[in-house]
Amino acid sequence: SEVKKIAVIAGDGIGPEVVAEAEKVLKKAEEVFGYTFETEHALFGGIAIDERGTPLPEDTLEICRSADAVLLGAVGGPKWDNNPKELRPETGLLGIRKALGLFSNLRPAVVFDCLKDASTLKPEVLEGTDLMVVRELTGGIYFGEKLRRQGEHGEEAVDTCVYNVTEVERIVRQAFEIAGKRRNKLASVDKANVLETSRLWREVVNRIAPEYPQVELEHVLVDNCAMQLLRRPSSFDVIVTENMFGDILSDEAAMLTGSIGMLASASLGEGSYGLYEPVHGSAPDIAGQGLANPIATILSLALMFRTTFGYEEAAAAIETAVAEVLDAGHRTSDIAVDKSKAISTTEMGDLIVAAI
Amino acid sequence: SEVKKIAVIAGDGIGPEVVAEAEKVLKKAEEVFGYTFETEHALFGGIAIDERGTPLPEDTLEICRSADAVLLGAVGGPKWDNNPKELRPETGLLGIRKALGLFSNLRPAVVFDCLKDASTLKPEVLEGTDLMVVRELTGGIYFGEKLRRQGEHGEEAVDTCVYNVTEVERIVRQAFEIAGKRRNKLASVDKANVLETSRLWREVVNRIAPEYPQVELEHVLVDNCAMQLLRRPSSFDVIVTENMFGDILSDEAAMLTGSIGMLASASLGEGSYGLYEPVHGSAPDIAGQGLANPIATILSLALMFRTTFGYEEAAAAIETAVAEVLDAGHRTSDIAVDKSKAISTTEMGDLIVAAI
Ligand SMILES: CC(C)[C@H](C(=O)O)[C@@H](O)C(=O)O
Ligand SMILES: CC(C)[C@H](C(=O)O)[C@@H](O)C(=O)O
Repeated sequence: SEVKKIAVIAGDGIGPEVVAEAEKVLKKAEEVFGYTFETEHALFGGIAIDERGTPLPEDTLEICRSADAVLLGAVGGPKWDNNPKELRPETGLLGIRKALGLFSNLRPAVVFDCLKDASTLKPEVLEGTDLMVVRELTGGIYFGEKLRRQGEHGEEAVDTCVYNVTEVERIVRQAFEIAGKRRNKLASVDKANVLETSRLWREVVNRIAPEYPQVELEHVLVDNCAMQLLRRPSSFDVIVTENMFGDILSDEAAMLTGSIGMLASASLGEGSYGLYEPVHGSAPDIAGQGLANPIATILSLALMFRTTFGYEEAAAAIETAVAEVLDAGHRTSDIAVDKSKAISTTEMGDLIVAAI
Repeated sequence: SEVKKIAVIAGDGIGPEVVAEAEKVLKKAEEVFGYTFETEHALFGGIAIDERGTPLPEDTLEICRSADAVLLGAVGGPKWDNNPKELRPETGLLGIRKALGLFSNLRPAVVFDCLKDASTLKPEVLEGTDLMVVRELTGGIYFGEKLRRQGEHGEEAVDTCVYNVTEVERIVRQAFEIAGKRRNKLASVDKANVLETSRLWREVVNRIAPEYPQVELEHVLVDNCAMQLLRRPSSFDVIVTENMFGDILSDEAAMLTGSIGMLASASLGEGSYGLYEPVHGSAPDIAGQGLANPIATILSLALMFRTTFGYEEAAAAIETAVAEVLDAGHRTSDIAVDKSKAISTTEMGDLIVAAI
């Protein structure tokens, strides 16, 4: 079969540990399903700052560009937090999104049965919660002009939020498509009562909506959305919103499921290209101790199989294997009720590999 | 004693009903404590659009300016939602904040014992939650330059977020002061890993912090704050943040207490001047039926007594009266478990007046 090229970015903290387990799953998928993958490792984030003096070396970008998809562990840590901007892991993250044209961030927020009780929400409120935040990822206030200057009232800082119709159209269209393949409900989140970019956003949404008559659309103001996620999480299917609102709401949505340590995410560009990573961060406090949970990264790989490669069978096999291992009661310490029975990162990876 | 002038803005929806009850409380406070209040009513919001062709008539501003404090019911409703910008209630709200220099919005989020179960959060997580969001209210992306233009990729919209050190200093200093009178904990929320305005914000916070050595300060990124509010709500005391983040986080915080229908808020300017209003909206669906709960508005009046007038005794008396009436089991329908036993807006107001 065709060779699929995957750029593998381990990153910082627990990144290398969780990515190593996902790579075992990749090998197993080759054996079981006859796929051929070619992986190439690349430096990115804090480790790239340390070894190469920049969070996003040019050859890392080249490796990503020549691949069909990217698997990312996690980046960042206190070591680099006080660095100047150009030498911070986050700057690499924004840079890679822009350079690879990853304009769409998909963040599914689902409740894992075994983690139902980990949520701070009441189980009856959480029941049936299964939503997806579609966040615009390369526009808005993240990438608009920034400046410092002297003003009338002392020093001042400026950030600029810009959106054009083309940028809004592509993300909104994608969200409608996704909603059409799920439960046919789309909530478009903006602050149209205050922001001009939100008014443009809403106009575009309303213009595109008639092309998707089967999708039920609601416009929700961002402040109201922050409330409704708490009040009626299970009523949401797909939520589409701009970069900054998406940053805030996707984290809120992930946290309310109680399953944040198990959630996968995809950042997509044009065509089928995508970067896949766990929602959790680099957790430097537990790095290198074999305590990390590799499930979110393994599920990110499954998402890559489905979304970039169209390998639905293998994607489903991975997801089923994860569910089986959890059903059998195996837990890493982050999700274990009885921590003394917790298994290690590699044990969890091995069990999932064996179950595929 | 001195005459205190209060501008009273009933507004739209349930606004007139809840404000009427607060005015009864005002009269009772005159009798019991010997204060003298002079009230003047002013048109604002949707009703002002209907009667005067603008949400914020000039004489309304004059009435507010010549008063010591403003009591506001609520504004807005579907009737005006599709109006052009200048003819929308929200535009009046932004206009009055700016015109009166109300740069600080205080939104206490507390859990009412009788409403503990109304929250979607687990009671054990909510236990002890009592926080205050201090939101900057006259700067940032709300008031920066906005535009529409033709760009390379079609029509585009721009919003500008600007903060100067003076604006940040005054709100941050106020938040430190408030924290110092509460539990000495301050969380400053920003997005300093992305925004220039946030970096300025954080610099100012760090510069002022040494003046308040007894206040424990943490910097929290806005996305993380949206999560931490869910995970550890009771660990927060005072949260200070810029306008847009404050809009989102204060609504999230209010909703998680389950008590959103009972919460008061204050918008303060220089000196002791302030505008006081319930956190809840105009609820047009139940307007005019005697179903509205006047407690949030009555508690807003108590907040005015304490904050603008320094009438601590009367403020405490109102709060105690509210607690007594609730403890005795009286409920308006929004907070009644058995709706058939619910009392009306005026009955609730009368009971509170009687208890003072
Ligand atoms: C690290 C930061 C720049 C980033 C963002 O805000 O986009 C992160 O919060 C995320 O959501 O991926
Ligand atoms: C109505 C709207 C403009 C307003 C705001 O965003 O400030 C409201 O949400 C609020 O919080 O008072």
